[in-house]
Amino acid sequence: MGDPSGVGPEVVVKALASKEVAGRVLPIVVGSVRTLERAALLAGVAVDLVEVSEEDSPLALPGISSYLVKPSHRRDRAARIGRQNGQGPRAYRTHLGFWNVGRKRHVMFVVAPPGLPSGSSPGQRGEMAFACVKEAVRLCAAGRARAVVTAPISKVTLAAAGLRFAGHTEMLRELCGVRRTVMMFVSEELRVSLVTTHTPIGRLARELDRSGVEGTLGLTHTAMRRLFGVANPRLAVLALNPHAGEAGLLGEEEERVIKPAIRAARRKGVVADGPFPADSFFSRGKWKDFDAAVAMYHDQALIPAKLLAGDRAVNLTLGLPFVRTSPGHGTAEDLAWRGRALAEGMISAILLAASLSEKVRLPLRWD
Amino acid sequence: MGDPSGVGPEVVVKALASKEVAGRVLPIVVGSVRTLERAALLAGVAVDLVEVSEEDSPLALPGISSYLVKPSHRRDRAARIGRQNGQGPRAYRTHLGFWNVGRKRHVMFVVAPPGLPSGSSPGQRGEMAFACVKEAVRLCAAGRARAVVTAPISKVTLAAAGLRFAGHTEMLRELCGVRRTVMMFVSEELRVSLVTTHTPIGRLARELDRSGVEGTLGLTHTAMRRLFGVANPRLAVLALNPHAGEAGLLGEEEERVIKPAIRAARRKGVVADGPFPADSFFSRGKWKDFDAAVAMYHDQALIPAKLLAGDRAVNLTLGLPFVRTSPGHGTAEDLAWRGRALAEGMISAILLAASLSEKVRLPLRWD
Repeated sequence: MGDPSGVGPEVVVKALASKEVAGRVLPIVVGSVRTLERAALLAGVAVDLVEVSEEDSPLALPGISSYLVKPSHRRDRAARIGRQNGQGPRAYRTHLGFWNVGRKRHVMFVVAPPGLPSGSSPGQRGEMAFACVKEAVRLCAAGRARAVVTAPISKVTLAAAGLRFAGHTEMLRELCGVRRTVMMFVSEELRVSLVTTHTPIGRLARELDRSGVEGTLGLTHTAMRRLFGVANPRLAVLALNPHAGEAGLLGEEEERVIKPAIRAARRKGVVADGPFPADSFFSRGKWKDFDAAVAMYHDQALIPAKLLAGDRAVNLTLGLPFVRTSPGHGTAEDLAWRGRALAEGMISAILLAASLSEKVRLPLRWD
Repeated sequence: MGDPSGVGPEVVVKALASKEVAGRVLPIVVGSVRTLERAALLAGVAVDLVEVSEEDSPLALPGISSYLVKPSHRRDRAARIGRQNGQGPRAYRTHLGFWNVGRKRHVMFVVAPPGLPSGSSPGQRGEMAFACVKEAVRLCAAGRARAVVTAPISKVTLAAAGLRFAGHTEMLRELCGVRRTVMMFVSEELRVSLVTTHTPIGRLARELDRSGVEGTLGLTHTAMRRLFGVANPRLAVLALNPHAGEAGLLGEEEERVIKPAIRAARRKGVVADGPFPADSFFSRGKWKDFDAAVAMYHDQALIPAKLLAGDRAVNLTLGLPFVRTSPGHGTAEDLAWRGRALAEGMISAILLAASLSEKVRLPLRWD
């Protein structure tokens, strides 16, 4: 659901009720039932949520594929399930809901993680956002879900909750106990991986190392093969400095870090070229000669990704045991809770997660 | 003419012989006559160059506007002028040439600066490139030309000549004795100024200061008014760090440097907003709400400029006493002297220089 003070709840509801998404996925929304009901009201989406027992919820099921509730399910059945529930305190509260999209009725679940705070102070909102991500990861790890799509969180409210994550990617890495993840932006136009993500520019040259570049190349290569089905992927590596350092005159990281990392990756069978000056790489469609590009830092990847695809550029995390996507935009608090947020990014994120995760065996292996 | 080992000579010849340029400007090419003749041969452009006396050359004229040689000028007249020349050693060797573009005949001058080296070693080629820029600046300073369009030079050959300029912009600043210049990229789609130009990323945060941001805003504001004729320009300022530093969590330069500089510029009447996260600024056409943007570093400006306009993105230097433009591409030595270089960038650079310089009074004043 994302940070409750951002556009997350609204774009989640709008995306799930969109013609593109409804019927293509069985959604399990992790968040506060009340917040989502408010967002649905705001978005003009009619939703009925009834609490169901754990046995009827996706939490209790061995695999999500066996649990496709057919559109013929009736509301009275859901109500009956609700009534049959015990009322004692439970770890998870699961709600079953029905949505009408056009003339079709679709089903969704809302899972409220245990101890979900109410979300009135910034710290509580940060805690709530974190609790939702944690629960979504748990659902995947338990085989109850095939992919995680995250709505925007705010580093400011996370910090207020005492959580020092620079972003989702760092949070997911810690939650899944994996050593390395890679942030990749994906659209029809461009696929670009990032060696560093939320590093201030002043620390960039110091933090960039061979292992980071080589590891990003490795995960990108595997993603192209296993997720995107490209048998022999060709990767392009972007330079850090203007003019790719111009033979060392405008920076030495190309010679000292990037070129040795490319050579090391090549020895392991990765087909990679570069480092290319980032400006001319995005001129004249040069990037179209490659299956994916590897960028050194956030804006170097995100400027072209968003310029080419706008909100359709989806953030995909490589290196996790499941598929994880996210829209490219942030919490946009100035827009939140006005009913005007556009769900295009969330729709693209859900569709990419669905399309990538239905092809692969889970857990995803990257070695 | 640019570095003789790059694509400069070829794109100069091709651009001058193009339908877009021929007849729109009176070109004075500063370079080696032999190199340009070779480039013309390669480009399949028929050119006749005859040496003329200084009195007949643009060097001797009070103002370029009084010296429009009409297409009716005949080759035999040029030959006559050539024969009348004294043969003694002169400071400048000027050649008058005729080009046929379609059925029309056009005129151009080639000026060889005194002491132009022959250009066989990298050091000599660097010296030659520098000599040409120096002479072009002198022609403008003397009121003999209204604008300078530079072809690409190579920092490597400049360095071999013992010249430690990071680029044209730095060279022109020194030659014109001005304190501050600003590199701006101009296309129909986007106008973007750079606070830093050829700074390695590792030094960026240290070199970025309030005076740089404020000065760039000031020159951009003046350029919008005096060169582009925008009475009340609106400027956008880009952030340095990812997510515009996210309230200091991802870098402090936004708070410490950029915001105070914007406030200072506003106090002087500059209308400026920001700092905007650079990635979302280039999403959804947000930049179209502004007359120009101010970027913090090279690739931040050049990635979107070249992605939007390709080679039509022209490099314009603000702060010089004359208009100076340049194509956005480099020497491209792998392409040079094969006859395949595209002149689109040089054509755009010449047309922008012509259009901006015909409207303004020279020398340009920026205070």
